[in-house]
Amino acid sequence: MEEERKKESEFRIKIDRDSDSYDEFVSQIKDLIANEDSKQLKEMLDGAHPADIVTLFRDLEREEELYLFRLLPKEDQAYSLIKMEEETLESFLEELSVDEISNTLDHIETDETTYLLSYLPGAKRELVLANLSKADSFEIRSQLGFREYSAGRLMSKDFATVSITDNVRKGIINVRKKAKEIEDIYQVYVTDEDGVLEGFIPLKDLFLTPINTKVAKITNFSVFAFHYDVDQEEVANTFKKYDLVSAAVTDDLGRIIGRITVDDVLEIVEEEASEDILLMAGVSEDERLSTPILQSVKRRIIWLNVNLLTAFVSSTVVAFFEDTISQIVVLATLMPIVAGLGGNAGTQSVTVVIRNIATGDLSFSNWWEAVRKECTIGVINGLVLGTVTGCMIFFVKGNLVLGLVVGTAMFVNMIVASLTGSLVPIVLKAMRVDPAIASSIFVTATTDVCGFFFFLGLATVFAKYLI
Amino acid sequence: MEEERKKESEFRIKIDRDSDSYDEFVSQIKDLIANEDSKQLKEMLDGAHPADIVTLFRDLEREEELYLFRLLPKEDQAYSLIKMEEETLESFLEELSVDEISNTLDHIETDETTYLLSYLPGAKRELVLANLSKADSFEIRSQLGFREYSAGRLMSKDFATVSITDNVRKGIINVRKKAKEIEDIYQVYVTDEDGVLEGFIPLKDLFLTPINTKVAKITNFSVFAFHYDVDQEEVANTFKKYDLVSAAVTDDLGRIIGRITVDDVLEIVEEEASEDILLMAGVSEDERLSTPILQSVKRRIIWLNVNLLTAFVSSTVVAFFEDTISQIVVLATLMPIVAGLGGNAGTQSVTVVIRNIATGDLSFSNWWEAVRKECTIGVINGLVLGTVTGCMIFFVKGNLVLGLVVGTAMFVNMIVASLTGSLVPIVLKAMRVDPAIASSIFVTATTDVCGFFFFLGLATVFAKYLI
Repeated sequence: MEEERKKESEFRIKIDRDSDSYDEFVSQIKDLIANEDSKQLKEMLDGAHPADIVTLFRDLEREEELYLFRLLPKEDQAYSLIKMEEETLESFLEELSVDEISNTLDHIETDETTYLLSYLPGAKRELVLANLSKADSFEIRSQLGFREYSAGRLMSKDFATVSITDNVRKGIINVRKKAKEIEDIYQVYVTDEDGVLEGFIPLKDLFLTPINTKVAKITNFSVFAFHYDVDQEEVANTFKKYDLVSAAVTDDLGRIIGRITVDDVLEIVEEEASEDILLMAGVSEDERLSTPILQSVKRRIIWLNVNLLTAFVSSTVVAFFEDTISQIVVLATLMPIVAGLGGNAGTQSVTVVIRNIATGDLSFSNWWEAVRKECTIGVINGLVLGTVTGCMIFFVKGNLVLGLVVGTAMFVNMIVASLTGSLVPIVLKAMRVDPAIASSIFVTATTDVCGFFFFLGLATVFAKYLI
Repeated sequence: MEEERKKESEFRIKIDRDSDSYDEFVSQIKDLIANEDSKQLKEMLDGAHPADIVTLFRDLEREEELYLFRLLPKEDQAYSLIKMEEETLESFLEELSVDEISNTLDHIETDETTYLLSYLPGAKRELVLANLSKADSFEIRSQLGFREYSAGRLMSKDFATVSITDNVRKGIINVRKKAKEIEDIYQVYVTDEDGVLEGFIPLKDLFLTPINTKVAKITNFSVFAFHYDVDQEEVANTFKKYDLVSAAVTDDLGRIIGRITVDDVLEIVEEEASEDILLMAGVSEDERLSTPILQSVKRRIIWLNVNLLTAFVSSTVVAFFEDTISQIVVLATLMPIVAGLGGNAGTQSVTVVIRNIATGDLSFSNWWEAVRKECTIGVINGLVLGTVTGCMIFFVKGNLVLGLVVGTAMFVNMIVASLTGSLVPIVLKAMRVDPAIASSIFVTATTDVCGFFFFLGLATVFAKYLI
C-alpha cells in the first residue's frame, strides 16, 4: 500500500480527501485564490487529475471554483466539466461565457460535447454551436437529435474505418489521420463501399500484418453493432453478456455512425444499479450527498406521504376489528409481527425480481419461472416461520388457539408477500413503468393490509377460545 | 431495430431466449442430442457466442449440456465455463475430467484460469495444474496465492512491456511476441531495467512513431498502478473516478506483475451494486433466478428469523401498554402508522448512505456532513408529516390531544429514523462489516420500538384526554 501510494504520486499529484493533510491543502488553496496568486496555484495543481480538481471544488465557494477553473489548461477544463456532478454542472455552466465553453469543447469527444451541451439552455447552446467548426457543430446537432438514453447519445463519432476492398496500408493511413483526435483507438471498423459495417480489425493485427495484405483477409466479421435508437440499458447488458470492449453504432441502413466503448458502459451500469436501489427506497434516483437538502426532502416526502395514505388504509382494516381488540388486547401486541414479517419477505421477493430484470436474466419469456420460484419460497418460508411463531406464542402465552391463529395468518401472509412481491415488478415492467419505482410501497401496503386482515379476522372467528 | 437484428445475425447466430422461435430451437437441439447427431448440431451452433451457448444450457438437462459442451471448439469451451453462473459451474466442473479441463485452459488468460481453478476441489486442482506447462502452472499458483477480491486476483498476467532505455523497435518486437497470446493489447508498459513501472505507451503511438525513437521520448508517465493487495472495490472506484481503460498491478517493490482492464471492472461494479441491493433486503448477495430454491430459502429465512426476534422485541414494548390500549382501542389502529413511516424514512437514509459509501463519495473524512444532512432532512420530514398526520387524526377522530400525540410521536420518530439510518451504516463500515448487510434490519427495529414507545407512552401520559 505504502509503495503504491508513493508510486502514484510520482506521476500525478493526487488530491485525496481522506489524507490527513487535505484540510491544510484546501486552506492553502483558498489563501492563494484570495491573493490571486495564479503562478503559485498553477504550480500546486500542475499535473493534478481533473477528477481530483472536481473533488477539490466541493470544498470551495463558487467564486473560488471559477477562479481555479480559469487557471486550468483548456483540456483539463473540459474534463473537469465532464466529471462535475449534474446539479453543480448546470449552475456552473451558467457562470461561464459562450467563448469559454466553446474553447474547452475542442478537446473532448463528440459524445462528451453532446453531454455538456445538453445542460445548456437552448439560446446559449445555439451560440456555442455557432462558435464551433461547421463539421463539429453539424455532428453535435445530429447527435443531440437522438433520443436521450439511446445508443446514439452514448456513442462517440470519433472512430477509424477502412473499406473492405482496400489493403492494410490504407487502414494504417486512416488510423494515422484519426490518431491525433482520438485518445483510444483499439480497432478499425471495416465497411463496404457504402459505409455499411462489415466487421473490424484489432489495432495490433492491423500493424502486425504486411501492408499489402487485403483488408478482407484479416477482418473479423463477428462485430457487434447497435441501432442508434437501442436503449442504453440494453447496450450495457449486451456489453456485459458478451464481454465487449467496444461496439459499433449503425444507422437505419446498417452504416456505421459511431462507436461505444466499455468505459462509457461502466457509468451506465453504475447508474442503473444506483437508480434501482434508490428508487426502491423512495429516494430520487440521482440523489447524492451533494444534492441540496430541500431537493432531497422534496422527493422523499412525496413517497412518505404516499406511504402515509397506505398506512391509513391498513389502519382502517385494524379499525374494523376494534371490538375484538378491546376484548383481547394481546392481539394489538402481536399484529405488528404478522404484518412486519410479511413486509420483509415481500421486499426480498421484490428485490430479487427487480435485480433479475435489471441484469436481463428475467424477461417476458421466463417471468412465470420467477413467480413460481418466489411462491415456492413463500410456501416454505410460511411453513417454517408460521410454525416457529405459532409455537413461540403457544409457549409464551399458553394458548394453543392463539398460536394457531398467529401461525396460520403468518403462513398465508408469506404467500401473499411472495406472490405480490414477484408479480408487481413484472406487471409494472409490462406497463413500461420502472419496476423499482413503486414496487416496494405497493407490496408492503398489501402485506400490511392482508396481515392485519387475516390475523384479526381469524382472531375474531375464534374469539371465544382466545379470551 | 429490424435492420440491426439482421445485421447482427449476419455475423453470429444469436440465441435469443426472447425470440418467438426459441422454444422450437431448444426442442430441435434436444432432439439432435437424443439422436447424437453431432454433425447437424455443430452446424447449428457454428459461430454461436459462448455466452449464448450458456443461455441455452439453462434449458437443457445436465447430460445434454455435457454432450453439447464436448462438441464445442476448445476455446468456446473455456469461454462458456467462464460465462457459467457460479452455482452451475462448480457441479459442471465435477463432471469434467482433469484432461478436459486442462485442455480448455490454454485458450484463456491467467486471471480467467485462476478464476476457474478456484472452483475446483484441492486435489483435482493439483492434477489440472500438473497438466499445464511449468511456466503457466507457476503463474497460476502464484495468482491463487493472492487474497480473494484483491487486485492480484483480478489482474491478468498477459501484458507487454518495454524498457525505458530501449527504442520503439524493441517495443514493437515485444508486442509482436505477446500478440498471439493476448487478445486485447491497448498499451505497452514501460519499465526501468529492474522491471519497476515507469509509464506506458498507447499502442497507436508505438506504431505511429519512427522505430529508432527512444522509448523515453514517447512514454506517458501518468500511469495508474495498484498494489496487488488493494481491494477490488477500490480498484473499481478508481477506474470510475479517473475513467481508466486499463491499469497496472505492481508488487511490493513497484515492479509490474499484471494489468487490469476496464471490462474486468465492469463485472465488479455490477456485482458490488447487486450485492448492496440484495444484502439490504436480506437476500444472499449472489442470489440469482437460477439459484436452487433451498439455497435461496436458507439465507432469506435466517434474515426473517432475525426479523422475527426484533418483531418480538417491539411487540414487548406494545405489551407494556396493554392497559392503555384496552382503555383506548383506537391506539391499536394508529400505532402501525407511526412505526411504519419511521421505518420507511429510516430505510431512505440507510439507502442513501450505503450508496454513497459504495461509490466512494462518503468516507471517514465527511461522515459528519452526511449525518448532519440526514438529520436536517429528518427534522423537516418530521415537522411536515407530524403536522399532516396530526391534523388528519384531529379531523377524522375529532380529538385534538390525540392528533397532538400522534404528530409529536411521528416527529420524534422521524428524527430517530434519520439519525440511526445514517449512523448505523457508518458505524458498521468503521467496524469493517459490510454496511449493507444488517443496517436496514437494525434501523427498522429501532424505529418500530421507538415509534411504539413514544406514541403509546405519550398516549398513556395524556390518557385522560383521549378517552
